[in-house]
Order: sequence, then structure tokens, then C-alpha cells
Amino acid sequence: MSNPSILILPGDGIGPEVMAQVTRIIDWFGEKRDLKFDVETDLVGGAAYDKHGVPLSDETMARAMEVDAVLLGAVGGPKYDDLDFSVKPERGLLRLRKEMDLFSNLRPAQCFDALADFSSLKKDIVSGLDIMIVRELTSGVYFGEPRGIHKEGNERVGINTQRYTESEIARVARSAFELARKRGNKVCSMEKANVMESGILWRDVVTEIHETEYPDVELSHMYADNGAMQLVRAPKQFDVIVTDNLFGDVLSDCAAMLTGSLGMLPSASLGLPNADGRPKALYEPVHGSAPDITGQGKANPIACILSFAMALRYSFDQGDEATRLEKAVEKVLADGARTADLMGPEDGTPISTTQMGDVILEAL
Amino acid sequence: MSNPSILILPGDGIGPEVMAQVTRIIDWFGEKRDLKFDVETDLVGGAAYDKHGVPLSDETMARAMEVDAVLLGAVGGPKYDDLDFSVKPERGLLRLRKEMDLFSNLRPAQCFDALADFSSLKKDIVSGLDIMIVRELTSGVYFGEPRGIHKEGNERVGINTQRYTESEIARVARSAFELARKRGNKVCSMEKANVMESGILWRDVVTEIHETEYPDVELSHMYADNGAMQLVRAPKQFDVIVTDNLFGDVLSDCAAMLTGSLGMLPSASLGLPNADGRPKALYEPVHGSAPDITGQGKANPIACILSFAMALRYSFDQGDEATRLEKAVEKVLADGARTADLMGPEDGTPISTTQMGDVILEAL
Ligand SMILES: CC(C)[C@H](C(=O)O)[C@@H](O)C(=O)O
Ligand SMILES: CC(C)[C@H](C(=O)O)[C@@H](O)C(=O)O
Repeated sequence: MSNPSILILPGDGIGPEVMAQVTRIIDWFGEKRDLKFDVETDLVGGAAYDKHGVPLSDETMARAMEVDAVLLGAVGGPKYDDLDFSVKPERGLLRLRKEMDLFSNLRPAQCFDALADFSSLKKDIVSGLDIMIVRELTSGVYFGEPRGIHKEGNERVGINTQRYTESEIARVARSAFELARKRGNKVCSMEKANVMESGILWRDVVTEIHETEYPDVELSHMYADNGAMQLVRAPKQFDVIVTDNLFGDVLSDCAAMLTGSLGMLPSASLGLPNADGRPKALYEPVHGSAPDITGQGKANPIACILSFAMALRYSFDQGDEATRLEKAVEKVLADGARTADLMGPEDGTPISTTQMGDVILEAL
Repeated sequence: MSNPSILILPGDGIGPEVMAQVTRIIDWFGEKRDLKFDVETDLVGGAAYDKHGVPLSDETMARAMEVDAVLLGAVGGPKYDDLDFSVKPERGLLRLRKEMDLFSNLRPAQCFDALADFSSLKKDIVSGLDIMIVRELTSGVYFGEPRGIHKEGNERVGINTQRYTESEIARVARSAFELARKRGNKVCSMEKANVMESGILWRDVVTEIHETEYPDVELSHMYADNGAMQLVRAPKQFDVIVTDNLFGDVLSDCAAMLTGSLGMLPSASLGLPNADGRPKALYEPVHGSAPDITGQGKANPIACILSFAMALRYSFDQGDEATRLEKAVEKVLADGARTADLMGPEDGTPISTTQMGDVILEAL
């Protein structure tokens, strides 16, 4: 049997730097745990635009559809700010999400004990925090038609369309309920049903799926504005949060920042299972391309490394090996390993991206 | 000359309780400062629905168009959850905003020194915080057409439309720049220009207005998801934030909660000036109708009282009297007056809504 395949797309900014550490870790699993992967690397985002004039070539797209998992670094940067909308780095990522049909985006917001002090929130509010945000990723205002800028009389008008079908809501709701069963058994669904009809449909469908398929899970509903408040006020009230593409974008970033360790947070974007039962899947850190620190060896590779841990768990059915990797990360943090983002100005000298890779490999 | 006129709409839940304290304060200004207002009171939200079968009657709407300022308490409550979308309490408020054309919603997020400890954020992150969020209030996805739920094949589809014209963006941008000039002279505009064309137009127009009319103000742009993060990470980096209706809804609630004193935060919604130079205006607390504490004398009336202070400043050109009222509020807080929302479980006995009114009147 051939090895499971991984397509690595380091992308832009710090993407290649953090991904270099992931590659070392993949190699370690191959050598030490006999978990071998066929790894290939390709371009996405600005890097792809520079070479091909598009942020994702058709060839790369085709490979993404074939492999067992995609690992992505980050896309975007000021160099590409003035590009036409249709070829912006982000379109490469959005094309992957859409064509791979990765409708369920899992974004854990977890506060690492060793780092609780680093949050802008009080320690008792965030220590032990462990939320899973499930964001719908292939519909809503990101992809709805009509869209664009046109002229009406002598003014321009900008339009986007928020659009959800019942089945689009149902499948992401199921994914949230399934996850909740393996965690705290609670789901909170967020929308603006008080002002948006798409929110009413969202609430209806989530309620239906709950009643007919997951009555054992505790379900609550919250308006998204209140959700943002509650995340700041008392985030530990949540277990799994399920929400649409745009609210999910904003709320998951808000939740991520609560932990104080954005450089630590992974994500998984999952689609439907292939013939072999594996979901189509893309793994990426929650953080962006961080142009301000690119090329300085300052980036924290942990979010990207933990994204690979999610791949081990969700794509390769290697939950134990995922836990092994996560424990290694916890250990180096407990031992005091800190990249620059995890330090205050007076906390001494941070270690580099590569050094963080070194100590995690050692801990493994 | 007749007195300036105020229409009071207490609304639902704790609305009437907090508004009762505002009425006492309006009376005080009439007696002690010779600032007399013609005050009338009417129904909005669920209260209006109970009486008229609609959340805002045409008569009340007509009066709102005529008076010099509207003060609103809060709308909504679980009793009305199952009402049809078109008569939900919220529609009353939205009708006021739309027909009065209140395009500029000013939401200060201010951290009161005496209450800095009460935030879920660390004291040094929020103490002295003073942000003004300017939210576009009459367009965007709240009002865009087409909207609704329809059938396609055998599934329901929910649709809303995000729509902005150049002039809608331009006028709220101007309002933000004007405010910035009176404050820290900095505006940060937030959208998702990386994924939404309406966000591209937003960024374009804000940039144009800045270059041609307000080059002296410092302007920056931020994606709204990053905005949510930055609000949690380091809110003091902001002075004025300008954003669209939906992002404004979520981000202003997030910012409000940073201060730890939601029961303290007022808002002003301003439209175009009338013949006499006064803008159409509605003032309301940022908090909601709080059904869980309704009728218990627990509600904090300060947000509603400070909304009246904003009315003094923006509608009645009485900046000094507004400051007098704000100082009285600061004084009672410094002296330790606390309603239940401003206390931890071990902090002793809170004072009631009316008692808070008492001490503020004394301080005046
Ligand atoms: C880069 C951008 C297109 C993307 C999004 O808006 O979804 C990012 O913010 C994210 O959350 O993954
Ligand atoms: C009550 C509701 C319609 C309203 C809104 O969504 O605008 C509220 O959340 C607000 O922020 O004023």
C-alpha cells in the first residue's frame, strides 16, 4: 500500500518559515514512528501569483483534490494589496475551500496553562479555556451571488449576498453536534435571527437537526453581537460554537485572541469523506502571513505544528500520535521555551523559529 | 419660543425602569438649570405590539419625525420570540432608524476609572480606554434587498443582501472624521475588502473622503476580523473606528464589553440636520432589555442617563450641561455607588435603580 499523501502549500510571509518546522516533524514521524507520508510542496497565494499570475494554478488545485490532506501556511501581504480582487492571494485560499467543499472549519481556542498570563484577559477568565468554534466555510456572504461593484446613476454600489440553503446549514450543524458529543456536549449557535432572514433559517435548521438527530446534546442560541460580548465577558461558558462564514471569521478571531497566543492556534477545514472514508481536508494556522516579521526567524511555528497534529487526528486516524505531538508542545512551553510573540518586552531573549522546532523534536 | 421637544419611548424589559430615572433628570434640568423640554411618552417594541399589533405605530413614527430628539429604552424579550419577523419588537427600532435616516451611530466605549477592575480584561489594558465607534446604521445587510426565505426545489434558502452606495459610505465617513478632529484625530476603518466587494468600495470611498476633505486626520484600514482581535489585544490603539452596520453591531458590542460596564454605555444615532440645524436624533443605551432582571429594581440607569447627556450635547448644543451630568455620574461612581451589575458576588449590597437615580440627582 502506498503512503498517505500530503500537499504542503507554505504560501506567503512567515508561511514558509513555520512550514519548514512542520516538515522536520513529518520526517520525524516517518523515521521514529514508522508513519510515512508522501509529501509534495507547491505554491499558493502571492507566491503562486508571482510565478503563474494566479493565486492558485489549476494544476495545484487538481493535486489538492487528489491528496489525503493539504497543509497550508499563510497567504497575503502588502506587496499584493493593489492586485485586482480576482487574483488577490486570498482568492487562492478561497478557491481551495470552495472546490474541496470544506464546509466545516474547526477552530479551537485553547488557553495553554503556561501562557495564561499572556492573555489581555484576567487569568481566571481564560485559564483552562477550551472552546471549539465550528465555522461554516463554503457559503454565506463569501460566495453568494450577485456580488460586485456596479454603477447606478453616477454612483458606484457595492453588493454581496448572504445566502444559505437548508442543507448547507444542516451539514455544518451536524459536524458541530458530532464534535460536541466528544467534548462537553454543548453547542451554542450564533446568528442575527432578529434582523436577518438567513439567520432565521439558520436557527430553524439547527433546531430541527438538534431535535431529530442530537436531542442528547445541549443546544442554545445567541445573537452574534451578544456572542462577541459573551466571549469577552465569560468565554468558559462555551463548549462548541457553530456559526456562519462571516460571523465565524470575526468571532473566531476574537476567541483566538482571548487565549493570548494566536501563534499557537491551529485549524482544520473538513469536507465530505472520500471513498476511503477520509474527509477532504486542509489544515492551517489561524494566524496570518505576518509580513512585519517575515524572514527574521521570529515566527512561532506552533500553530502550524498543531495544525499537523489535527491532520494526524482527523485525516490519518492517528489520535494517539496527535496527542504525542500536542504533549511535546505543552512540555516545551512548560519548560519555558518562548518565541518572541510569547514574551513581554522584559522577559529575556526569545528563541527562534528553528530553535522552537529543535526543542519540540527533542521533546518528541 | 417653545421648548425643545423630546419623545420618550421606554420600550420593553428594563426600558421603563431606567427611563424613569432619566425623566427625573430631565425635570431637574428644567427646574434647576432652566432648561425646559416638552416631553411626551409613547410605545415601541413589544409594548407597542401588545397595544397596536405593530412594534411602532404610524402615529408614533410621525411624532418621532417631528420632535427634536427621541430617547429610547430597549426593545425585545422572550415573550415576543415567536412573533412573525415583520412585527418583532426589533422592527420598531429598525423602522425608526431607517425612516429618520439615522445613518451615524455613535457608540463610545469608555472605561470608567472607578470600574476598571470590573472588566474581564487586565486593568492596564483597559484603564483610561476611550474609543468612539461610528457604525453605519441605515444600510448594509440590515436593509438590503432582495431578502427573505424562499423555496428552491425542495429546500428553503435564506437570503440577505449587503449593499452600500458611495454616498452612504461617504456620509458616515465624514461623520467619523469630524468626530476624530474633536478627539484623538485618528480614524480606523474596518471591513473585509479581502473577501467582499462591498468592502472594497467601502475602503475606496473612505480613502477618497480622507484625501480630499480630511487629510489632517490619521486614517488606517483594518480587516474586521483583525479588528475584533485588536480590540481584545490592545484596545487603546484606537480613537475613532468607522464600520458598516453589521460589523458595527458585533464590534461595538465587543468593545462595549471590554469596559466591563455595559450598563454604563450610551449611544447616539444621528441623521441629517433639520432646517434649524439640529440633526434628527435618537439616543439609547447600548444594553438590551435584560428580561432576566426586569421589574426587580436591579437595572443600572446610567447608560440611559448618559444617553440623555449625549442628547444635551448633540441635539441641544448644551455641551456644558452634558459635562455636568457626566461629571455627576463619575462622582457617584467614585463615591462607591454600585448597582448589581457593577459588583462581584462578595462586594456587599448593591443599590437599586431608583437609588442610583437619587444619588445622581444629589450629585447634580
Ligand atoms: C485570509 C482570509 C480570506 C480569511 C477569511 O476571511 O476567511 C482569514 O481571515 C481566515 O479567517 O481564514
Ligand atoms: C436590537 C437589534 C435590532 C439591534 C441591532 O442589531 O442593531 C441591537 O443589537 C443594537 O446593536 O442596537
